[in-house]
Amino acid sequence: MMRTKQSEPGAVGGPGELALLRLIRARTAKTSAGGLRLGIGDDCALLRPRPGEELAVTTDLSIAGRHFRLDWHPPEVVGHRTLARGLSDLAAMGARPVAAFLSLGLPRELTRAAARRRAWVERFFDGLLTLAAAYKTPLAGGDLAESPVAVADIVLVGAVPRGRALLRSGARPGDLLYVTGSLGGAAAGLDGLGKLAADARNPAKLSISKKMHKLLAAHLSPQPRITQGLWLQRRGLATGALDLSDGLSTDLGHLCEESGVAAEVDAAALPVHPTATLAQALHGGEDYELLFAAPPEARLPRAFAGVPVTRIGRMVRPRPGGPPVMLMTDQGPQPLEPHGWEHFS
Amino acid sequence: MMRTKQSEPGAVGGPGELALLRLIRARTAKTSAGGLRLGIGDDCALLRPRPGEELAVTTDLSIAGRHFRLDWHPPEVVGHRTLARGLSDLAAMGARPVAAFLSLGLPRELTRAAARRRAWVERFFDGLLTLAAAYKTPLAGGDLAESPVAVADIVLVGAVPRGRALLRSGARPGDLLYVTGSLGGAAAGLDGLGKLAADARNPAKLSISKKMHKLLAAHLSPQPRITQGLWLQRRGLATGALDLSDGLSTDLGHLCEESGVAAEVDAAALPVHPTATLAQALHGGEDYELLFAAPPEARLPRAFAGVPVTRIGRMVRPRPGGPPVMLMTDQGPQPLEPHGWEHFS
Repeated sequence: MMRTKQSEPGAVGGPGELALLRLIRARTAKTSAGGLRLGIGDDCALLRPRPGEELAVTTDLSIAGRHFRLDWHPPEVVGHRTLARGLSDLAAMGARPVAAFLSLGLPRELTRAAARRRAWVERFFDGLLTLAAAYKTPLAGGDLAESPVAVADIVLVGAVPRGRALLRSGARPGDLLYVTGSLGGAAAGLDGLGKLAADARNPAKLSISKKMHKLLAAHLSPQPRITQGLWLQRRGLATGALDLSDGLSTDLGHLCEESGVAAEVDAAALPVHPTATLAQALHGGEDYELLFAAPPEARLPRAFAGVPVTRIGRMVRPRPGGPPVMLMTDQGPQPLEPHGWEHFS
Repeated sequence: MMRTKQSEPGAVGGPGELALLRLIRARTAKTSAGGLRLGIGDDCALLRPRPGEELAVTTDLSIAGRHFRLDWHPPEVVGHRTLARGLSDLAAMGARPVAAFLSLGLPRELTRAAARRRAWVERFFDGLLTLAAAYKTPLAGGDLAESPVAVADIVLVGAVPRGRALLRSGARPGDLLYVTGSLGGAAAGLDGLGKLAADARNPAKLSISKKMHKLLAAHLSPQPRITQGLWLQRRGLATGALDLSDGLSTDLGHLCEESGVAAEVDAAALPVHPTATLAQALHGGEDYELLFAAPPEARLPRAFAGVPVTRIGRMVRPRPGGPPVMLMTDQGPQPLEPHGWEHFS
């Protein structure tokens, strides 16, 4: 649990930690808490699901130098992205957020305020708690420790009516394949951020203008599709669903594998992000859009809560030894190999 | 969620990861799952509490060099201790374990098997999953990533009847103060381990004999008091409870603070571990025993499930400006200051 003492083995320690915990507690109290009965302060938090609900739980680990770069990403962006990854997993199950937990390991210098500048960790919590408030997700606990490398493990707990969660395993041949939003924007944004860093006078203090932040928003401030996931879950239209964290070519492979089906993607139908290439739309990770299958008779709107929904292909019967995913192009069909996308490595 | 692909940003990668995940899935399937409906493989795990239950959630971060040492602790010990920390938080709430989640960041070399030696990570999971099986706690998900420093964040979810969790906040003046097991053994064991390391010919490969492991067991393989916590919760006898992770002097201070009371500890009554000093019993951390208050009319057994229960003092009315905890000795009462215990720093 989030502790308030300096004495814990490995604790961040110092008066800064107490101030930080007061800040977190104060801001957390303001967010609504549908299901949270007891938050920070005891050995565990207590969650009370509504009758007939089950709970969805997910954890995502973010490590400096692997999932973010301290010299590229402003602390608010790291906080936002840390939570967005977890919320996106809840969206993919059609769950409403109940509570988040954060285990944070930080080098001591990131917990200290410098002259006229707030501590990195305070700005990190600004980003995280702003997104948490937008999705009514109270921060209900966690752990703080000193670490030679910045690490943040986010845990999300959501609630979904029993037996109604969107799983990866129910897609059937004949189902149509849909995606929310646009694809490749996060990969293009990361590419843009890298170029910005390469051109910067002082790469240790990358400054991102408001205009540039907007252009790179798909990477810097991805929006978890909670509303869209809830919509799908309530209507019971999707037979299989997941979130696009590793790129369409990889994640569609998972949907096929878990459902025991194959898929065809129409290249011309893909909602490629205006800043992205086709390759980025096919393989770029971290778009955090929803990918789902629905029966052909399902009537889907063109948009859920302002986010477009695009039909991009169909599920088909798998051929023994054949590739699970085919890309249909002007030049004919070709296998779409999973080209997972690894940044900073 | 625990992923099975090499392509995830920051993933451990390589065929070793797939083999590892198969091992985890195979071993996890064998453990009973009271409340786990869907484990590793989808975007989230799904937990189904029984009617009338609420869920307790806790996270604990362990970092190499802070909470364990790669050159001192065998991998099985790190795995055991990682899970024991989380289970102990559930015990302190009187919750039964439902599922565990693990986010693991590891340097690549710890994921690779060397000539005639299994990979560090396999032995880590041996320790963790053996303890998980003993407490019927399925590993239901998590995340794996490459990291320059070994980090393990453990998440435990437990279930407890609504409104029946053992909290820190209900102790009253007049209540008697109890502790399970003995105190100071973990601090003494860590001390012994340090001496063993100092005397070792090759400190990079510390070898711990079976006999020595037994002597240092309170540190190397602490047992979470799940059974004892459940017993207390079912009888409704404890007015306030927590687990001793930071040492009696610190944790009793938390109990006093959250309950708005003060406490007196009888030095002569303390169940000091046979290998420990009085100072280690008062201030040593990581014993993972339960500390609880109960009304004087409560009838407590001398032991719960083979673990002794000892009355060590009483809760009293707080005096304005007075110290929250007093130690009663032959030389008279003296304030017991919290001397939290920080190892490796």
